Amino acid sequence: MNLLLFTPEERRPDGTVAVGDRRLQHLREVHGKKPGERVRAGELGGLMGDAEIVSLSENEALLRPSLHTSPPGKLPLILVVALPRPKMLRRVLRSAAEQGVAEIRLLHSYRVEKSYWQTPVLKEATIREYLLQGLQQSRDTILPRVSCERRFKPFVEDTLPGLTRGRRALLAHPGDHPPCPRGIAAPTVLVIGPEGGFIPYEVEKLQQAGCETVSLGPRILRVETAVTALVARLF
Amino acid sequence: MNLLLFTPEERRPDGTVAVGDRRLQHLREVHGKKPGERVRAGELGGLMGDAEIVSLSENEALLRPSLHTSPPGKLPLILVVALPRPKMLRRVLRSAAEQGVAEIRLLHSYRVEKSYWQTPVLKEATIREYLLQGLQQSRDTILPRVSCERRFKPFVEDTLPGLTRGRRALLAHPGDHPPCPRGIAAPTVLVIGPEGGFIPYEVEKLQQAGCETVSLGPRILRVETAVTALVARLF
Repeated sequence: MNLLLFTPEERRPDGTVAVGDRRLQHLREVHGKKPGERVRAGELGGLMGDAEIVSLSENEALLRPSLHTSPPGKLPLILVVALPRPKMLRRVLRSAAEQGVAEIRLLHSYRVEKSYWQTPVLKEATIREYLLQGLQQSRDTILPRVSCERRFKPFVEDTLPGLTRGRRALLAHPGDHPPCPRGIAAPTVLVIGPEGGFIPYEVEKLQQAGCETVSLGPRILRVETAVTALVARLF
Repeated sequence: MNLLLFTPEERRPDGTVAVGDRRLQHLREVHGKKPGERVRAGELGGLMGDAEIVSLSENEALLRPSLHTSPPGKLPLILVVALPRPKMLRRVLRSAAEQGVAEIRLLHSYRVEKSYWQTPVLKEATIREYLLQGLQQSRDTILPRVSCERRFKPFVEDTLPGLTRGRRALLAHPGDHPPCPRGIAAPTVLVIGPEGGFIPYEVEKLQQAGCETVSLGPRILRVETAVTALVARLF
């Protein structure tokens, strides 16, 4: 945890913040902080800076934040990724938040097991928890937007054209395609398939919707590795 | 598992290979393969291709390989990374192998907890297991070389100059440094610090040994995310 995040609702009338959960544990056990010391802190959706530890007990830390810095800019990226299995989903959410992805759309596709849509990881509070872990790691206060697209065809036909307006649309797909561009730093929609890849029908639909098909080379990467690698290559 | 790997020692005199471990389980349960079908296969250190499933029982699969393709080229990269905690080490080994890193040196540094050097993950057979997972994912047959550098100063003073001869040497370190170059595709030594970063003395020693200090931007990435992101950006 490189940044202690709190919500505006956690502010007391005098501006201080009391934390008693995992953040308290982290302050005590990992950072070994004592009253009077300072810790890097940020308000979710707002500024970053540090906070003075006013008091610290086994049950509660009282913090007085002093915030003055804007969070780092988000990458102008909408990541559309076929819903991975739950364990990998957790890591994708965390690392995409860590890297500064602005928006994540979890998409159904033929090779996504239907049971994946039942995972508790998709509960709003759980998604938020993994995103927060990413923000606390990379020092950011802005949660990426996350939504679920449970029907492939309506998404690609009706929603995707709106998303790609004014944005470059890339489909990362194994095979003999042009290499994924580097350092484009422009508004982008990046579409990544499931383990095993999109089926030919899906690739065709995505191409019809305006996606350029690009490759990351001859190696088949796990979805979580591919997400991190593609984001790092594009921005 | 996108490639079933076997060792030359597993070949029988008639060229067939019998597998009875996790690979058998994977063939049966994940791929649902039947006798007469084929599976992508490769010989560790050698060629790739496919294998006919001659017979398949609960205890054993007998395979007849037919190999004709070279594995993808390794990245000309020596990754020097401060030893991460065991859970992260496993992921770094797997994803570095997956991405095609040629060589990995695990380095001690001030912020590496001494206990990390006692982890069973560092046993040769365990390291090999994680590397194999990476190769089986990305379809490669060549294991990266992995070694441990348990003393920072002798490594940087005596070993590093030999490694960087004829190679670009980069130290990825948070801070206001030039951005990490993109797509250099040249022989490179990439040095990545521990959680919390190298201490100033270590940064100085690495710079004296010829490392250019580069940054990945304002975000502090977890070591495993940083490794994948930097490799993807450089190659």
